[in-house]
Amino acid sequence: MTARRVTYLGVRRLALDTAGAAPPPPGHVRVDVAYTGIGDTDLHIFRGDMDDRVEPPQVIGHEMSGRIAQVGDGAGDWRPGDPVTVMPWVPCRDCPACRVGHTHICHRLVFLGVDAPGSLQNTWTVPAATLVRVPHDLRLDHAALAEPTAVAVHDVRRARVRPGEKALVVGGGPIGLLVAIVARRFGADVLVAEPDPYRRFVAEGLGLSALDPDDGIAEAMARWTDGAGAAVAFEVSGAAAGVTTAAGALATRGRMVQGTGHPAPREVSLHDFFWRELTLLGARLYDRGDFETAVGLIAEDEIPAGPLISRIEPLDRSAQAFAALESGAAVMKVLIDCGADGEAEA
Amino acid sequence: MTARRVTYLGVRRLALDTAGAAPPPPGHVRVDVAYTGIGDTDLHIFRGDMDDRVEPPQVIGHEMSGRIAQVGDGAGDWRPGDPVTVMPWVPCRDCPACRVGHTHICHRLVFLGVDAPGSLQNTWTVPAATLVRVPHDLRLDHAALAEPTAVAVHDVRRARVRPGEKALVVGGGPIGLLVAIVARRFGADVLVAEPDPYRRFVAEGLGLSALDPDDGIAEAMARWTDGAGAAVAFEVSGAAAGVTTAAGALATRGRMVQGTGHPAPREVSLHDFFWRELTLLGARLYDRGDFETAVGLIAEDEIPAGPLISRIEPLDRSAQAFAALESGAAVMKVLIDCGADGEAEA
Ligand SMILES: [Zn+2]
Ligand SMILES: [Zn+2]
Repeated sequence: MTARRVTYLGVRRLALDTAGAAPPPPGHVRVDVAYTGIGDTDLHIFRGDMDDRVEPPQVIGHEMSGRIAQVGDGAGDWRPGDPVTVMPWVPCRDCPACRVGHTHICHRLVFLGVDAPGSLQNTWTVPAATLVRVPHDLRLDHAALAEPTAVAVHDVRRARVRPGEKALVVGGGPIGLLVAIVARRFGADVLVAEPDPYRRFVAEGLGLSALDPDDGIAEAMARWTDGAGAAVAFEVSGAAAGVTTAAGALATRGRMVQGTGHPAPREVSLHDFFWRELTLLGARLYDRGDFETAVGLIAEDEIPAGPLISRIEPLDRSAQAFAALESGAAVMKVLIDCGADGEAEA
Repeated sequence: MTARRVTYLGVRRLALDTAGAAPPPPGHVRVDVAYTGIGDTDLHIFRGDMDDRVEPPQVIGHEMSGRIAQVGDGAGDWRPGDPVTVMPWVPCRDCPACRVGHTHICHRLVFLGVDAPGSLQNTWTVPAATLVRVPHDLRLDHAALAEPTAVAVHDVRRARVRPGEKALVVGGGPIGLLVAIVARRFGADVLVAEPDPYRRFVAEGLGLSALDPDDGIAEAMARWTDGAGAAVAFEVSGAAAGVTTAAGALATRGRMVQGTGHPAPREVSLHDFFWRELTLLGARLYDRGDFETAVGLIAEDEIPAGPLISRIEPLDRSAQAFAALESGAAVMKVLIDCGADGEAEA
């Protein structure tokens, strides 16, 4: 058994190579990968932003779908051919976060595709505990959106969005649109703030209201909320301006979810947080409940997976796909076809 | 009836004058003021920091105790001589915050002693709705701590402190020590971070652990929390360094309460908020429940009012008292004797 895989070698350098795939050790399974989506973390790695953490050569990628290929001893009730996705992290189960049940923010989290080999290969061996079952009738390209959808579910749950609340989503990339769609599904009245016209166009195609934050957002928010401000703002842009937009949009007692990292400290008007009793909630990754909810939402067609997937590229065009995403071309989610979907159909 | 009163005239200028005291209009009462504490807001006014809001000449002061002197029509079941304190703000009852019950963060809040005459006078007319009953056997100098104690109760409740949790209080002035004492009363294991040695000395005299944040706080926190970090941090210093100390001290999923304003935006590591799923909670003022809890805690001797009151000055020495507080002299809370306690005893 040979794996064809994409490894990160250093800043903006990816290589396609092959390696032997050993049988899965006890408690592990080998998954034939159908699709791997390229996400922000992968782009950060590609740009070298995570070189203090990622050791080349590293197989990257972690947003995926596939089918069970081979089951190791004691790996549970899995059969070859079962469709799956992977919740791509392994907690230590012994740090202060793990001990109180917050395993997704484990102090020593091992993230697959960052700290350990990822899914940008045709076959991938993972701990059985990371597997998440996918319904047999769910398209595997759509199932590859489970991981970013789980992020969105986690963000929305962290905000405790209540039906009828007005929620501003700051940032209209794939995560922002997924947050908007999930928040709408949870009953919120949603508006997306996004400077890029293509992304606003995609948002509007999904029935979401979208505006350019540089285009009188304060007035627009006042009109939309009758002067009250939004109950919730999701900051998923990672930009300094996004923080100002999100905090500035909130009503008294509004909740701002910080759903992405920032490369530098940001100036925050703590006086506003004090004065209006705002809440800032950091939200990172997801837990198993979020992930299973995400798979369910995709299976129920609540997530418009088709319009969010801009294109699907073969494994040997991964480098070009990364370069296109980097260039800011008009794309939303790009999947890499890692082979197992075609094989299953053949 | 004549009122002797202290008015703010402009930066660092206070005047003692007299004015006629009219009978209370309907729904109002006239209170003979026993004591008025000088708080941070009063010092901000004194320094001219609030000149865009305060219109001289303005009677300032709002942390007080006193006795009912005269009851206006329809002002409720009050009798002359009843000991009271005042929850010194009046909401509009019609803005988006008021409409959802958050009257203390009303968009058009009228704060007595800032936007309307305050308690730094021997007799003060206030809306009856602002009165809070004080037990007859509670010393009126101690009762004057009700307002800052209510701030502390509100901060601790906003953090939802649970018994056994470790809580760091950043800032060891009167509010910081009250927060520490209330958090301890709610079951927290408390540590105070305060650079001033006099304030640490007072804290330790109250049985609180205190440390200098410049003296290896990261190591101290790691030792104290067994590497986990604190569950809660109260930022009441208003200083840029206080924000860094508070956020840096927190465990994964820790809650930081921003219990005071900041004169400028602060650099905040939003990445840490994201990465460790921290929560920032703005906390301003208090509601009636907090205020009544505060009076109860003082009455039950849970608040060490005696050690917190550094000295009591007569009304005609108000200017000197402000100057002494401004100079950073070794004082904690200073009360101004506005006369009604002596009268009551006479
Ligand atoms: Zn752990
Ligand atoms: Zn109001």
